[in-house]
Amino acid sequence: MARLKAAQRRDQLLAIATRLFAKSGFDATTTASIAKAAGVTEPILYRHFSSKRGLFIAILRRTSSLTLQRIAELAAESTDPLEQMKIIADRLPKTLTDLYESYQLLHGALANCRDQQVIKVIRQYYKNIEAFFVTIIEKGQKSGQFSREVPPALVAWSLIYTCLGFSMIHISLKPKHDISVEQFIHYHIRGLYA
Amino acid sequence: MARLKAAQRRDQLLAIATRLFAKSGFDATTTASIAKAAGVTEPILYRHFSSKRGLFIAILRRTSSLTLQRIAELAAESTDPLEQMKIIADRLPKTLTDLYESYQLLHGALANCRDQQVIKVIRQYYKNIEAFFVTIIEKGQKSGQFSREVPPALVAWSLIYTCLGFSMIHISLKPKHDISVEQFIHYHIRGLYA
Repeated sequence: MARLKAAQRRDQLLAIATRLFAKSGFDATTTASIAKAAGVTEPILYRHFSSKRGLFIAILRRTSSLTLQRIAELAAESTDPLEQMKIIADRLPKTLTDLYESYQLLHGALANCRDQQVIKVIRQYYKNIEAFFVTIIEKGQKSGQFSREVPPALVAWSLIYTCLGFSMIHISLKPKHDISVEQFIHYHIRGLYA
Repeated sequence: MARLKAAQRRDQLLAIATRLFAKSGFDATTTASIAKAAGVTEPILYRHFSSKRGLFIAILRRTSSLTLQRIAELAAESTDPLEQMKIIADRLPKTLTDLYESYQLLHGALANCRDQQVIKVIRQYYKNIEAFFVTIIEKGQKSGQFSREVPPALVAWSLIYTCLGFSMIHISLKPKHDISVEQFIHYHIRGLYA
């Protein structure tokens, strides 16, 4: 395999570790198997990540920053808060499909993990999403487009809960209704309109 | 410890196993440690459950039937669909607090488990909840209390997603907003009112 630059190698290791953790679980996946799948030796892997746990936390941080970046990119397509919410409802889910395995790891950690460092990273992730939506909703409340009776944090967290529940159930159970996540989000933000 | 009747012993073993699985995880909990905490020998445990996996599945089935039973009890307090939804929104969360550890196991399995039998039990659990809410919503749509534009399955699954997301995040992260789950559910079913 051709030699990669440091940043590319790091990204490749993150991608391969995500796939292996999602397939076999954190405990059953060894750094040796990750290194092997990447075509490098373990010392090379340890040059990028101090431990398997460090690699896992780096995956969570990357998932967090990519998710926020994509929400921000969609929101940047308009300056109107109602339009911003509609663009996000319509297009966010599809822009995140390549992160499904990463979310699977994040949700597994959320359900089971007792590692305080991991919990801190996940808490910050949701806090950043909350802050982002609260800003849009407050702007819409000031302009009179959104109902002022609804606390912005309620809508922000409610969106987070709906998307978390949807993706957990869809990834594992594939239930047989044909309602899209976009429909769920639209139904969901109906309560916000003034 | 005094001898218990078979049904009581079974319930006691389920309660103890739930606590230990939630505390230390399925893999790290042995049937020996469950038997010891219950004050019985392992052969007694195996009289009630064929394996640790069988015990885990029995916990999921019990969680499922208790949850459905309590939703049904609340719904039985009225024959009016709108009232039924409001009673459930107001009072369901508090009636389920003793099942928090059981939900933690269920959500952990939902996030990580590849055991097809476990997935089947969880799928049936959500399917039963869906069917229950769809019946109430269809009745309210016939009576004109609920909007006929909203597919009943959308509301049912949306409630499931919201409650799943809420409990996952609250159990693990304890975020610092002071909005109650009852407020989330009420906000959430607002979109349904005709």
